[in-house]
Amino acid sequence: MKKRVVIIGGGFTGINAARILGNKKDIDVTLIDRKNYHLFQPLLYQVAMSALGEGDIAAPLRNMVANFHNITVFKGIAEQIDAENRIVKTDFGDIPYDYLILACGVKHHYFGNNQWEEFAPGLKTLAQAKEIRRRVLEAYEAAERTNDPVERKKLLTFVIVGGGPTGVELAGSIGEMSRYTLSKLYRQIDPKLTRIFIVEAAPRILGSFDPELASKATRSLEKLGVQVWTSSMVSDVDANGVQIGNERIEAATVLWAAGVTAIDTGKEMGLETDRIGRIIVEEDLSVPGYPDVFVGGDQAHFSHGLQNPLPGLAPVALQQGRAIARNILLDIQGKARKVFHYTDKGQMATIGRNKAIVQIGNIRFDGAPAWFTWLLVHIYYLATFKHRIFVLMQWGWSYFTFGYGARLIVNREWRFYPDAAACPPNSEKETKK
Amino acid sequence: MKKRVVIIGGGFTGINAARILGNKKDIDVTLIDRKNYHLFQPLLYQVAMSALGEGDIAAPLRNMVANFHNITVFKGIAEQIDAENRIVKTDFGDIPYDYLILACGVKHHYFGNNQWEEFAPGLKTLAQAKEIRRRVLEAYEAAERTNDPVERKKLLTFVIVGGGPTGVELAGSIGEMSRYTLSKLYRQIDPKLTRIFIVEAAPRILGSFDPELASKATRSLEKLGVQVWTSSMVSDVDANGVQIGNERIEAATVLWAAGVTAIDTGKEMGLETDRIGRIIVEEDLSVPGYPDVFVGGDQAHFSHGLQNPLPGLAPVALQQGRAIARNILLDIQGKARKVFHYTDKGQMATIGRNKAIVQIGNIRFDGAPAWFTWLLVHIYYLATFKHRIFVLMQWGWSYFTFGYGARLIVNREWRFYPDAAACPPNSEKETKK
Repeated sequence: MKKRVVIIGGGFTGINAARILGNKKDIDVTLIDRKNYHLFQPLLYQVAMSALGEGDIAAPLRNMVANFHNITVFKGIAEQIDAENRIVKTDFGDIPYDYLILACGVKHHYFGNNQWEEFAPGLKTLAQAKEIRRRVLEAYEAAERTNDPVERKKLLTFVIVGGGPTGVELAGSIGEMSRYTLSKLYRQIDPKLTRIFIVEAAPRILGSFDPELASKATRSLEKLGVQVWTSSMVSDVDANGVQIGNERIEAATVLWAAGVTAIDTGKEMGLETDRIGRIIVEEDLSVPGYPDVFVGGDQAHFSHGLQNPLPGLAPVALQQGRAIARNILLDIQGKARKVFHYTDKGQMATIGRNKAIVQIGNIRFDGAPAWFTWLLVHIYYLATFKHRIFVLMQWGWSYFTFGYGARLIVNREWRFYPDAAACPPNSEKETKK
Repeated sequence: MKKRVVIIGGGFTGINAARILGNKKDIDVTLIDRKNYHLFQPLLYQVAMSALGEGDIAAPLRNMVANFHNITVFKGIAEQIDAENRIVKTDFGDIPYDYLILACGVKHHYFGNNQWEEFAPGLKTLAQAKEIRRRVLEAYEAAERTNDPVERKKLLTFVIVGGGPTGVELAGSIGEMSRYTLSKLYRQIDPKLTRIFIVEAAPRILGSFDPELASKATRSLEKLGVQVWTSSMVSDVDANGVQIGNERIEAATVLWAAGVTAIDTGKEMGLETDRIGRIIVEEDLSVPGYPDVFVGGDQAHFSHGLQNPLPGLAPVALQQGRAIARNILLDIQGKARKVFHYTDKGQMATIGRNKAIVQIGNIRFDGAPAWFTWLLVHIYYLATFKHRIFVLMQWGWSYFTFGYGARLIVNREWRFYPDAAACPPNSEKETKK
């Protein structure tokens, strides 16, 4: 009798688990995701900064598993898990399972201030990346139009909250864009006057890296015009800027790269979670008390044999996806499952052209060699061969022309929304931003 | 003293007028568009059908005129024209002009039934193309999820209203997508069961082409599974399909390729317009009574020396843009303006792989040679060299893999909209469609 594996989430964990289980006989796989595509999140900031288009970093899930005849993909929402009866309740029906893999990832966390989200979008989804892109470009357009110097200064000010790799990548991109790419395109403003701030609560940015590498990254950022404020905790965010204790910065664009929290499944199922909502898993990545339910990726808290729990990085999610799939296969064969061991692939962050930092085990380096390593690794892990070619070409083009190709603002026309009468048309809102 | 030319609209007319006036001494050009990009409209249907991404057919306006130091671009809305005092009133201030070029284009026309727009989006903007792409892909996802055969049949039914080149291109794409590209990607449904209808009020489709070419195109469409209904006028459109007199088709997706009408400027200025709102222009493309105001492209009605007014085609808009710019230069030099003569570049429509029809003067041909011609012409007229390379590569990839690369659904997350409380979250609406 066939065993049915249900995977919720088509990110690094889900898709890699599916690939291992694909075409294995006597196994049926059902993959559910609320989107119809797999997103290569490490490059999301490039869509936010108009360096790549959405099609460059997202691949339709169906294509990725098309050759596996035992995998069925549904675009839908898993609303509830009935772990006693082994049923996933979705918005299109109930799906029974023999094994369940939870791989739903995380969303942004505003430390109890959810009202900040409207003013400071995060960067976890394609829609957010495009919203950020829109806001950054609109700020320059509005600055070009206005005659008010104070308004102009505010429009040409960007605050990034959070000094981890994402914040650094965003800030470095805006720095490069304003000091190089945009310099010839405006007539009324000088884009090089753009002020860019990274606001970090900890004593230094890039806390997960060695202090020396983080220090080099800070200098690289400064050379691009980024002002790095450490030991600075944001106390309020509004439509006009951020408050940092007694200090204040007026900015039209604030971006949130500060905190993440896991999707609520863990709490809803009554499972033990950590401080940010991640489900605490056993050595084999299963859930305590429910050996047929596994959790992997950002949604999982794994700390067996380690000083600290594994971080929410892409290689962790990928390796866990594969390990879970293999443990399911072992279980079906009546063999013992394996304890998960993470092979540390290190971490890296990029600041701009030719500048990045890489830290793998005891190896540390920066500058152009780090940047090329960063490029190669990201190309390698992209979803499909086609994506690798197209992204390489986009990067090649941008590099040689400083072009930053995908600089488009596509407005949110919701004319097809039935309550359109209740919501002012987008164009009014557009022009006033 | 410098002469100031204001151009409203960055489409084929506006951008080509700007290029002629670029770097001409003693002329300042101000280009205003509500978008920050130039759109290559002939390929919009490819974005709607997931064959190309938005970045492939749109180029930021600033890049296109970056090397012309006398051209300033503003992203904004021209709200009113004060022709007596020669002022354009925009949403960011008043802009005086010596010469004005109106090139605002057209929008869709629902023959007095604007309520149909919500159910049947047109294809004139990038946002519409992406909305169509979303609806088409969501229909397949929903069909894969449902167990109800009647619901499934409705989801796998597409109605295209209008049998001109746009309607034919949309229908042919869905035909090709369903019969070839999607065939291996679904497990619960057979995409080849998709029903596709073109509903045309006239006795035949492609009325602007020779009857013989139109007949060949009809046969090509039928071979792709498209059902062509002629002498069929749509009497009503609702959320569940279309009413055609006493006949009815239940369809989850209806697309509007039927009628266009000019932007309202003509009427607002009290100018003489034709039946669909286009401003009637003189031989030199200026407005009767206002020799310093010109109109070009889809917004203009030009019929001097012709049996019929020039159609709303890209080559017409392009040539008019150049002619207007040259007439302005002649005027500044105190010379006589020239009468506009359109050099007929013919017309073409594509139905699918290797199938298209081309009609130029007395030349008519179809099949694969027509298809290659269509490809070459569109590549040639793309905005920039970069676009040509990338589109060629996308087409090359799709051709050899039947891939249809950009098949993504990106949801309309409007969480950053202040009236979010008044508008139900997008995800609810999503899953019920």
